[in-house]
Amino acid sequence: MEGPPQAGLGRLAVVQVKIVVDHALIAREAWAGGKPLEPGGWASSLPNHRGLGHVLIAALHHHLSVTPSLKVEYIGFSSGAPLVVVDDEVAAALGVRAHDRLLVKRGGREVVALVNVARRLPADTILVNEEVASALGVVEGELVEVAPAPPPKSSRYIREFVLGSWLGADEVRAIVEDIVRDRLSDVELAALVVAAARRGLSVEEAYYFSRAMVETGERLELGVKPVVDKHSIGGVPGDKTSLLAVPMLAALGYYIPKTSSRAITSPAGTADRAEVLMPVNLSLEEIRRVVLKTGGCIAWGGALRLAPADDKIIRVEHPLSIDPFLVPSIMAKKAAVGATHVVLDIPVGRGAKVATVREAEQLARMFIEVGRRLGMRIACAATFGDQPVGYAAGPALEAREALRALQGSGPQDLVDKAASLVGLLLELLGVSGGKAVAL
Amino acid sequence: MEGPPQAGLGRLAVVQVKIVVDHALIAREAWAGGKPLEPGGWASSLPNHRGLGHVLIAALHHHLSVTPSLKVEYIGFSSGAPLVVVDDEVAAALGVRAHDRLLVKRGGREVVALVNVARRLPADTILVNEEVASALGVVEGELVEVAPAPPPKSSRYIREFVLGSWLGADEVRAIVEDIVRDRLSDVELAALVVAAARRGLSVEEAYYFSRAMVETGERLELGVKPVVDKHSIGGVPGDKTSLLAVPMLAALGYYIPKTSSRAITSPAGTADRAEVLMPVNLSLEEIRRVVLKTGGCIAWGGALRLAPADDKIIRVEHPLSIDPFLVPSIMAKKAAVGATHVVLDIPVGRGAKVATVREAEQLARMFIEVGRRLGMRIACAATFGDQPVGYAAGPALEAREALRALQGSGPQDLVDKAASLVGLLLELLGVSGGKAVAL
Repeated sequence: MEGPPQAGLGRLAVVQVKIVVDHALIAREAWAGGKPLEPGGWASSLPNHRGLGHVLIAALHHHLSVTPSLKVEYIGFSSGAPLVVVDDEVAAALGVRAHDRLLVKRGGREVVALVNVARRLPADTILVNEEVASALGVVEGELVEVAPAPPPKSSRYIREFVLGSWLGADEVRAIVEDIVRDRLSDVELAALVVAAARRGLSVEEAYYFSRAMVETGERLELGVKPVVDKHSIGGVPGDKTSLLAVPMLAALGYYIPKTSSRAITSPAGTADRAEVLMPVNLSLEEIRRVVLKTGGCIAWGGALRLAPADDKIIRVEHPLSIDPFLVPSIMAKKAAVGATHVVLDIPVGRGAKVATVREAEQLARMFIEVGRRLGMRIACAATFGDQPVGYAAGPALEAREALRALQGSGPQDLVDKAASLVGLLLELLGVSGGKAVAL
Repeated sequence: MEGPPQAGLGRLAVVQVKIVVDHALIAREAWAGGKPLEPGGWASSLPNHRGLGHVLIAALHHHLSVTPSLKVEYIGFSSGAPLVVVDDEVAAALGVRAHDRLLVKRGGREVVALVNVARRLPADTILVNEEVASALGVVEGELVEVAPAPPPKSSRYIREFVLGSWLGADEVRAIVEDIVRDRLSDVELAALVVAAARRGLSVEEAYYFSRAMVETGERLELGVKPVVDKHSIGGVPGDKTSLLAVPMLAALGYYIPKTSSRAITSPAGTADRAEVLMPVNLSLEEIRRVVLKTGGCIAWGGALRLAPADDKIIRVEHPLSIDPFLVPSIMAKKAAVGATHVVLDIPVGRGAKVATVREAEQLARMFIEVGRRLGMRIACAATFGDQPVGYAAGPALEAREALRALQGSGPQDLVDKAASLVGLLLELLGVSGGKAVAL
C-alpha cells in the first residue's frame, strides 16, 4: 500500500497513493478494506466522515503542494490589517490555527493575512476583510488560492525575547517594521509587551526601539535649532502644565512643536484641554507652519503617524494596564518632531505611575541616556504626583484654569510646576536661573 | 456654562449642560459662540464633525448612564465565545478598545462580549457573532443596548502575575474558570502564558492549575483501582510506544484508559496512529465501556472536555511555540481519567523538548510532587530523544511497525523503550522486576 503508484495511473493515482501512505484516516479505510485503488472510484470507497473533504485538501496540500481554492465572502468590516476567517476543519486541513498566517493568492497578486478560525462556516468559503479584498482586487464569489505562510522572522525574535534573549538592533528593527505593517498577531504583540514588562528593557533595547519607531514613521522637519519640547509621563489628573509651558517657551523665542494625546487614564489629555481653545487636529505641515510663525503649538498626535509602531504597541498594553515601552514610546515621539532639548516630567506618588523618587531616578537615567544616543539633551524632573494639579478637572474647566494662570491668577501649584519645568529646560539650553526667567 | 440646568428645560437640557461642562469638542463650540443653549436647536449649532454623533453617545453614556442602542447585524460565523464588532469611533465614544468587553442587553437578557474594533462600520451598527445572537435571542435589525463591562477579576490576577506576584489557589481557580467560559481575551491569555514562560510555574502554581483544570472539566469514573496510565511529554517523531504499552498493560490485567492527541509537532500523534487500527473518537461513556471490558483503550482526547482550559491555553501557546503549562496540562488530563499510577516519558536530546538529563530531573520532580498532591503516584523516565523511535514515521507505517513489534518482530529500540516504561509502572504498582515481566 505504501509502495510507488502503479504505472499508467497518472497524477490522480499518485495523489491517492500518497494519501494512503501518509494520512491515517484514509489509510485506515484502505487498510481495512484492502481493495486496490481505482482512480475515480476513490471518494465512494471512503467512509462518510464530515472532515473528509478537508483531509483530502490537507493531504493534497502537504504532499503535492496543490493549493486549494476557497470562495471569497466579505467579512464586512475593516480591521486595519489583512484578516481572513476559515472554518475550523478547513484550518485543520490546511495545518493552520488561529493567529497563524495564510498566503492568499489570486491571479498574480497575493497577500499574507492573519487567520481567524470559526465554526460552522462552509468548507469551501473564506471570509476576507477589506484589506485582503483590496490587496487582491477580489469580489465575493470569486476563488482564491490559499497556503499556510510561515511567521515572519520577527515572530521568532519575539519568542527568543520571551525565552530570555536580549534583542539587538537588527532584531528590534525587524520587529518594529512588522508591527507597523500589521504582520504580527496580537498574541505575538502581547508576548513582546509582557516579556518586556517581566524583565524591563535594557538601555540598548530602549534605544533600538526608539530609533526604529522613529525611522518607521513620519517626521517633522522644522529646519531650525534648537527645537524644544516638554512631556509628562502622565498619570496625574488635572495636569494642565503643558498649556502653560508651551506659550511660555514660545514667548521666550523658542520653537516648541508639542504633540499630545487625548485622555487615557485621566479625565482629560492635553489634546482634549487644548481643543477647548483651538483646533488640535493638525497635519504635520500645519504644525510646521504654526510653529515657524508663532513659536509653539499644541497638536493631537493621534493621527500623525509619528512612531506608528508605538500606537500599535499601546493597543496591547492598554488591556493589560502595563506600559513597559514607556521610554521608547516617549523618546520616539520627541525625536520624530526633531526635538533637541526636552524636559520630562515624572510625577512621583501613590496614584502616579512611579511610586518613589528612587524609581524616578532610574527612569530618568534611562531617558537621559536614550536621549543622548538619539542626539537629544534631556532634563528630568521628579514632581509631586500624589494629588491633581490645580483645582479643575475636565477639558473645559482645565482650559479655563490654564488661561487664568497665564493671566496671572492661576493656582500656585500649577504656576510653580510650569515655571519649574520651563526653568529646567532653559538651563538645559544654557540660560542660568531658568525658573526665575520663566516666572 | 458649567452651572446647573435652567429650570423648566427638562431632561434634554440636563444632557446638554452636562455635555458642555464635560466634553471638550462640544464645550469649545459653546465657549466660542457664547450662545445660550436652546433645547432642540442643539444639533444645528454644532460644527459638522464626523465624530459628533459618537461624542454625544459618549457624553450621554458617561454622564447620565443612558445606554446607547445599536442595531444588530450578524458577523456570520461562530468563534466559540461571545464577540461583537463596533466602529472605531463608536468604540471611542463608548470608552472601550479592542480586547475590552461590552455588556450587551436586550429585554431581560444580557451577555458580556469581547470587543473587536473595526473601521468604516455604520455608527449605529453592532456586529454580533452567533454566541451573542443566541444568548440574547436577537435577530438582524433589532436594537440592543450596550455598556462597557469591566474585565473579570481574573484579568487583574493575570496582570499581577505578569508584574511578579505568585498566584494562590483562589486566583488560579478564577483564572481557569474564566478561561473555560471564554471570558478572557487572547491578549490576556498570552500574557498568562508568557509570564509563566519567563519565570516558570512554582510547584504550588502547577498544582493549583492542574486541580482547577480537572475541576472545570469532565471526568472519567471507572469505579475500579488501580487505574494506570502512560504519557510522553512528546517531541520525538515516530514514538509509537503507547501503541505497545497500552495492550501490554491491559494484557497484564490493569485498567488503562489512555487518551492522546493528534499530531502537534511530529508526523503523527498517538491518536493518529491508533486511528489506523481502530476508532479513536470515543465518548467518555464509550471509553468506560471499552476499558472495563478489555482493560485498555486508546482514545483521542480532543473532544472529551477533560481539562478544557488546557485546550484553550494551548491555542495561545502554539503560535508562540512555548508550553510553560506542560506539567498542569498533562497532570490535569491524567487526573481527569482517574489515573492512580502513571509513568511519564521525558525524552532528552537535542531535538527534544528537554535538552539535558538535569532539566529532565527537575521536570520529573515537579511531575512527581504535583502528582502526589493530586493523589497519584508518578514514575518518570528520561529516555533517549536524539532520534526517532523505530524506523517508521507517518500514521499507517507507525501503526504497522507497532503491530509487528507486538507480534515479536519490531525494532529493538521500540520494544526496549515500551518494556522499560511498562516495567517502571509495574514497579510503581509493587511488581518487582518490572521490565522483565513486561518483556
